[in-house]
Amino acid sequence: MADIDKLIRETLKGDKLAVSRLISVVERGHAQTPYILEKIYPHSGNAYYIGVTGPPGSGKSTTVDRLVKMLCSNNYSVGVIAVDPCSPFSGGALLGDRIRMNKRKSEWDVFFRSMSAGKIMGGLARTTKESSRILDASGKQIIVIETVGVGQSELDIAQATDTVVVILTPESGDNVQLMKAGLLEIADIFVVNKADRPGAENISMSIEAMLDRQRGKLEWRPPVLLTSASLGKGIEELYAEIWRHADYLRQDDKLKERRKSQLKGELKQRIESEIVNTLWQKIRDDADIDELVNDIWEQKIDPQSAAGKVVRRCLKD
Amino acid sequence: MADIDKLIRETLKGDKLAVSRLISVVERGHAQTPYILEKIYPHSGNAYYIGVTGPPGSGKSTTVDRLVKMLCSNNYSVGVIAVDPCSPFSGGALLGDRIRMNKRKSEWDVFFRSMSAGKIMGGLARTTKESSRILDASGKQIIVIETVGVGQSELDIAQATDTVVVILTPESGDNVQLMKAGLLEIADIFVVNKADRPGAENISMSIEAMLDRQRGKLEWRPPVLLTSASLGKGIEELYAEIWRHADYLRQDDKLKERRKSQLKGELKQRIESEIVNTLWQKIRDDADIDELVNDIWEQKIDPQSAAGKVVRRCLKD
Repeated sequence: MADIDKLIRETLKGDKLAVSRLISVVERGHAQTPYILEKIYPHSGNAYYIGVTGPPGSGKSTTVDRLVKMLCSNNYSVGVIAVDPCSPFSGGALLGDRIRMNKRKSEWDVFFRSMSAGKIMGGLARTTKESSRILDASGKQIIVIETVGVGQSELDIAQATDTVVVILTPESGDNVQLMKAGLLEIADIFVVNKADRPGAENISMSIEAMLDRQRGKLEWRPPVLLTSASLGKGIEELYAEIWRHADYLRQDDKLKERRKSQLKGELKQRIESEIVNTLWQKIRDDADIDELVNDIWEQKIDPQSAAGKVVRRCLKD
Repeated sequence: MADIDKLIRETLKGDKLAVSRLISVVERGHAQTPYILEKIYPHSGNAYYIGVTGPPGSGKSTTVDRLVKMLCSNNYSVGVIAVDPCSPFSGGALLGDRIRMNKRKSEWDVFFRSMSAGKIMGGLARTTKESSRILDASGKQIIVIETVGVGQSELDIAQATDTVVVILTPESGDNVQLMKAGLLEIADIFVVNKADRPGAENISMSIEAMLDRQRGKLEWRPPVLLTSASLGKGIEELYAEIWRHADYLRQDDKLKERRKSQLKGELKQRIESEIVNTLWQKIRDDADIDELVNDIWEQKIDPQSAAGKVVRRCLKD
């Protein structure tokens, strides 16, 4: 505990090594995690959270690199969390291409962290939130969360950030139909990256058309930007649009409302997992799961009835 | 209840309309769902389950079309469930391209159903399992479950089927590194589709090399097939390999073990959601969540401690 307290104290002072170690502790689901979060939480809430998502290969990491460079040049201190939800078994196949960013550490006030489902106990979404809160409490002014936009992860990022940047490419063409309905709900800014390639205008127009159809329903109409992140083109515009969105949110308590609604979602999720964690131990002790699986296999009982039986028995005690 | 009983009876006789209606009832999370599953379950377990997954645009639906055609020509009755986990908000953007398959309904003994996260209450994985069990109990001999391989969905398919076919394309090249670690764990058969395009041999070799590195660890070495589904090339080979894998599973109780382990996973998941469902109502009545969110917002308490407080209070009563 003394060690953890020291780590927390040094984290709050902004010590990079302490931040890194504290995030590792939380990532591994250490028993002290709730204690850490309790101590960290009152010091968080000062940073601005930017989410960047899009399909694999859309140039998210290059864009984030450029963005971080601009933020640092403007004297912001930045924390970056790159989330890889794709490979629950790989321990993070995406991590390789991010090594270059660590070079930046000495040049600027930036902290970079990769997270993959493989090494994390208790859910990527939760760990991302907790780690970004640690970065926030350590004094980082901007937190960038980058994630591959697949399945649930794009919703998670909308639940964890203030401004969501959705990156597509001309190659997304075939799949944009598939993705855009979900992306529309979460995007505050659309970026068509690799805009030097053919098809960029088409994608851009198709997104604009989609936004036109929502006219009246959207209080904030997401801008659609064309970038070539690898050439550094369009990044200044992206940077400006992020701040324009931040300014928009700061009007009329919008940011407060957004964050409170996120906190409500988080609280619900935490209550659910707390319930499961609390009762699961008890159930494992009480019920012989393997015997029940045998009964299900032999079709003496169906899975749902079996589950109901276990839970009723457990709650009665 | 009389209606539901009639629907169940007709489903068990194989009536297509009844099957369709019963699946809709389960999809919508109707209160009678547990009752339906209890009645259906003892009649399930006779079908063979094939899973087909891969990235968007890899030709899954074309491959499944061709496969179903072959299965039907060989006088199998087939149920197909196409799952779209991508668009929680869209109500199923993927569904449009599957209309053509419904034409087949009159020609052969095939039942086709699309599922998207948007219209489903209580989780895509669970609904897929329940619907496929209804198809199974209705007398379908083969169930094909097709899903976009993103995030959790590829694990869900491995949890629900006997033979998993993973489809990639030459275009998957850039992303195969990212995907393959996870895919290796679930693939029983690899298909490189669109094999007429450049790069097909490379992908195929890269998968074989990856399998070579696992030599000794793999009891079943997944074959790597080259197909051009739109031209109908390689489908016969795929068909043969699926049956070779089925034969392999039928040795030494392997199929039984695989299915029992799936049932165990399912039971655990059902226990968890049963716990949450049972207690959540109680919590909503007891605790004023909004007040607690305010306290969290004002940093009087952190989210994890707040959740713990709610759950402890609820379990003490």
